[in-house]
Amino acid sequence: MQDSAGGITVTSEEKIYDCIIIGAGPGGLQAAIYLGRYNRDILLIDRGGGRTQHARHIENFLTQKEISGREIIEIGLEQARNFNVKVEKGTVTKVIKKNQFEIYAGEKRYLARFVIVSSGVYDHLPQIENLYKFLGTSFFTCIDCDGYRTTNKKLVIIGNSLKSVHLAIAMKEMFTKDITLILYTDRVPDEYREELVEENIRLIIGRPVKILGAEVIEGLELEDGQKVECAVIMSHFGYKLNDGFLSGLNLKRDRKGFKFIVNNNYESSLNGLYIVGPLNQGNDQVIIAAGEGAVAAIDIKKRLLEL
Amino acid sequence: MQDSAGGITVTSEEKIYDCIIIGAGPGGLQAAIYLGRYNRDILLIDRGGGRTQHARHIENFLTQKEISGREIIEIGLEQARNFNVKVEKGTVTKVIKKNQFEIYAGEKRYLARFVIVSSGVYDHLPQIENLYKFLGTSFFTCIDCDGYRTTNKKLVIIGNSLKSVHLAIAMKEMFTKDITLILYTDRVPDEYREELVEENIRLIIGRPVKILGAEVIEGLELEDGQKVECAVIMSHFGYKLNDGFLSGLNLKRDRKGFKFIVNNNYESSLNGLYIVGPLNQGNDQVIIAAGEGAVAAIDIKKRLLEL
Repeated sequence: MQDSAGGITVTSEEKIYDCIIIGAGPGGLQAAIYLGRYNRDILLIDRGGGRTQHARHIENFLTQKEISGREIIEIGLEQARNFNVKVEKGTVTKVIKKNQFEIYAGEKRYLARFVIVSSGVYDHLPQIENLYKFLGTSFFTCIDCDGYRTTNKKLVIIGNSLKSVHLAIAMKEMFTKDITLILYTDRVPDEYREELVEENIRLIIGRPVKILGAEVIEGLELEDGQKVECAVIMSHFGYKLNDGFLSGLNLKRDRKGFKFIVNNNYESSLNGLYIVGPLNQGNDQVIIAAGEGAVAAIDIKKRLLEL
Repeated sequence: MQDSAGGITVTSEEKIYDCIIIGAGPGGLQAAIYLGRYNRDILLIDRGGGRTQHARHIENFLTQKEISGREIIEIGLEQARNFNVKVEKGTVTKVIKKNQFEIYAGEKRYLARFVIVSSGVYDHLPQIENLYKFLGTSFFTCIDCDGYRTTNKKLVIIGNSLKSVHLAIAMKEMFTKDITLILYTDRVPDEYREELVEENIRLIIGRPVKILGAEVIEGLELEDGQKVECAVIMSHFGYKLNDGFLSGLNLKRDRKGFKFIVNNNYESSLNGLYIVGPLNQGNDQVIIAAGEGAVAAIDIKKRLLEL
């Protein structure tokens, strides 16, 4: 038959998966492991890459004293495959819901009774020379993940909004007394400047262009030639969601129109479509996404039994 | 000074922990790892034992193709200690809230700004000879954990309520066609009996007294001498919460008066006291409890910054 949405020819025998999982992040992988162990027909579609892949050194995941994001994903894929989850490489471009879900990836269309979205986010990273050399080892983007690794070190925080002032004060209380805050914006109200003076946090308005140091970070060079000594850098520019393929579904988001609203089982405002990981309003952490994936999978298990 | 609650003598210099975690289950350990990495003063009190210790073979935890509950706890304790969490052996008998929390364990009293309860549950297990020999390898108590390991095997389900009828039907759809349900109660309405006949699930009213088999389970012997062949057993008698030490706090529970009600950050109805793991209304799974522990820890981090 001819499909109205994409002009793709499908036969009426087309396979319907019990659940299709979009994205092999920790939430998607954990859901795949659970659903595979319920002996369900599960497809996991992943584009490759993803933010977890960039985490070189994770030390806050129960049972893993130190593991890289890449290892988490590789082991997770192996676990999922061992429970007969089918894994396909592909970039999902569109999701439609009719009687069941239709998932489009490249030239292909897949059908599913339930969908779990675990497509993650992209970090906004500033344009700074040598950034990728130190990313994940001494250039960080997440206080909950890597704040600890700045403990008692010479820290520079870079950001483009006043939220970074609060971040600097929090990091001073928890991690290190030696902090320079470099803001890209000069719109800093006096009360913020005073608070920073009180906290003994140096403030520079400027734009870093280069990380200095061969083996380890030694400092940051700014556009105006100024050099700021430091051993670790916390970057604070937020992230954007990898959610373009969901745009046709009109899913409910939070008041800012940013994150998706989900219920206690991580089901979105669209019946049967679940969203785990940093796309929902929860904290974006590997172990938390994994727990969410398990919760979503158990809910889908119950609903598949009712069909 | 003399304490009104317990008659224990304390000095005014008594240490106040930022957070005390009760129970080294996956939720408590994961919370300890997070809070330790915020460089907070954290004490974890554990009595030893606990249900996770009995899980010999966990294969649904992301990054661990196979791990025992004991290993999860041992590694988790090591991780927590590495982040300067203090671990003490003790059985908490009472929690009181005044200006801060007072936690009593044996002869000792500890003070804390926040508390995370991760004290877990006790499985109700029937009195059957040889049960502990096979517990966790072929005698199971949790469908989400171990249902998969009954796939295509000769299964006996034992239970004492009609809920076990639904469990049997669900297990037939997901795991194995060869099921005998042994119920301790003979109050089985006709419609339930008919459904079991339709599903081709054998029903026996009786009381198993002994598991047969030397190396592997070969069957169950009933009180009346009847023998039922099987390779795996799913026990379905529920569990009770390890919550006696919370009894003075009047915490809100669900409608059945069983599980504790918590908010999205796993905080109970008592300000500052968090409950993770199977004591709350969520699913009781290792990875889910771990995720809950991280969420609670991040919330406590924020609140400690506000003090």
